[in-house]
Amino acid sequence: VILAVCLSPAIDVTYHVDRLVHGTTVRVGTVAERPGGKAVNVARVLHGLGEQVLLVAPVGGETGDELRRGLARLGLPSRLVPSGTCTRRTVTIVDAEGEATCLVEPAAMDCWPALLATVEESLAHARVMVLSGSLPAGVPERGLTSLVGTAHARGVPVVADTHGAALLEALEARCDVVKPNADELAQVSDGNDPARAARGLADRYGTVVVASRGADGIVAATPRGTWEARPAAALAGNPTGAGDALVAGLARGLAHDRTAFDHPEETLRAAVALSVAAVRVPTAGDVDVSAYDDALAGVRVRALDGVG
Amino acid sequence: VILAVCLSPAIDVTYHVDRLVHGTTVRVGTVAERPGGKAVNVARVLHGLGEQVLLVAPVGGETGDELRRGLARLGLPSRLVPSGTCTRRTVTIVDAEGEATCLVEPAAMDCWPALLATVEESLAHARVMVLSGSLPAGVPERGLTSLVGTAHARGVPVVADTHGAALLEALEARCDVVKPNADELAQVSDGNDPARAARGLADRYGTVVVASRGADGIVAATPRGTWEARPAAALAGNPTGAGDALVAGLARGLAHDRTAFDHPEETLRAAVALSVAAVRVPTAGDVDVSAYDDALAGVRVRALDGVG
Repeated sequence: VILAVCLSPAIDVTYHVDRLVHGTTVRVGTVAERPGGKAVNVARVLHGLGEQVLLVAPVGGETGDELRRGLARLGLPSRLVPSGTCTRRTVTIVDAEGEATCLVEPAAMDCWPALLATVEESLAHARVMVLSGSLPAGVPERGLTSLVGTAHARGVPVVADTHGAALLEALEARCDVVKPNADELAQVSDGNDPARAARGLADRYGTVVVASRGADGIVAATPRGTWEARPAAALAGNPTGAGDALVAGLARGLAHDRTAFDHPEETLRAAVALSVAAVRVPTAGDVDVSAYDDALAGVRVRALDGVG
Repeated sequence: VILAVCLSPAIDVTYHVDRLVHGTTVRVGTVAERPGGKAVNVARVLHGLGEQVLLVAPVGGETGDELRRGLARLGLPSRLVPSGTCTRRTVTIVDAEGEATCLVEPAAMDCWPALLATVEESLAHARVMVLSGSLPAGVPERGLTSLVGTAHARGVPVVADTHGAALLEALEARCDVVKPNADELAQVSDGNDPARAARGLADRYGTVVVASRGADGIVAATPRGTWEARPAAALAGNPTGAGDALVAGLARGLAHDRTAFDHPEETLRAAVALSVAAVRVPTAGDVDVSAYDDALAGVRVRALDGVG
């Protein structure tokens, strides 16, 4: 089982409107709602590929009920931990020209001990744990460190996709793989060269740093070397979906082979191909499996230094 | 009891943000949620004034559960009719400068026969029925006419606040009082003079037409004459709140005296004073009762023609 821990799940609401004009009343044409949050998207991609996956997330309030039902409709196995704070919403307003404006509510939870206990129980059969998304209010100091330590104590590797202080905590807790994008990487390192920054963090923390660079694919720094992987054609489309699919690919590689990052070429190729298959669909968490198969052959992986 | 029928209730969500920039991800600072919909606001104003009130509305989905709990928190007596369609939301985005952008989801219901039956039962002890807001999808053709006919068959007068085709239907069904604003009035009559348009509709349909004119107060045309009522100072602030408080005042007048509009001066004075007390509070449905008492003396009511 791949365990996906989503501390900041959401109901993702999409409003289609003609035009979003400030200071006016705007009639919404159509409304779509679905379970969201980065780790939920990762779990959906893995589930769509036929992987066994288990989602753990806090849920509260009416939006929490809605999340529970939404996950059941998707057939996504989950252990949801009751929280006294409402599951948040995100509202994305898409106008007739396709421009998207996303409003993100703050996330909060109040059930940390129960969540940690649920993760501990769920680790028994896990091959890898994914931690994706921001840390909500209500996670205690060093909470992420506790989660990672719990996994490592059971020999389960951890893939983390977060940013800012949480990304630094993930590195210090020795997450096995971290996946920042170029902006998130720049925030925690000096300079703007993703390859150099990833290399520096990998050396400092002895971990795998996979930096996503949008249309240019990824740079991956491992203790053994640095690689880049580029899609056959420039990626354009849904960046959230692409990032979450990339994380799904990295976790899947580790789940199938604990030593996947000793020789990471095939895992990187597969993860970038998943990104390619996700970036063109409008909904994060959806992957076009035939597009994935097509994309696999087109990804070019190249050693930049090290063992190659 | 004053019966408030809300066919298009909502959960009104308010997002406070720094700036709303198109095409970006905007972090929401604070989120506020409360029961909404015009007739809900009217019922809240009446409840705040100590009137006995009963709200009838369709509710569905998780937002319907939220509406039910919100009304219970407010202590607002209600009979909620289960609908298979979700209660809608409105999302108002208020930026740091106070500019408000409101996104209104489409409203729908699928429980018309049960709703009509609930209204019929609730009319037994009603002194007046208020119909406020738009007609959702799922209301059958001539549905508003049926509601009004049901009330009239029991001798209960009807105050309607709606617009467009529904306003015309309310007039044709001989609602006792209709309350369009100047724009809504212009849409169903010729010319842009509210007093002339209200007079014309009152003559044609034999009903009371109270046209709200924003900062200028109101014009009321009854079968006996035409009046205007102006607040002491120009109104500025929350127009939704002001309109719903005005309707509450008109309904209250009728509830206390079935012949209130034979000599409408005091009812108009009280209704405009309620508007004044509502327009300065940010939340529709809230009224500052001491501001109401202060405003009463300042409202000037003047006959424009007729019996005076």
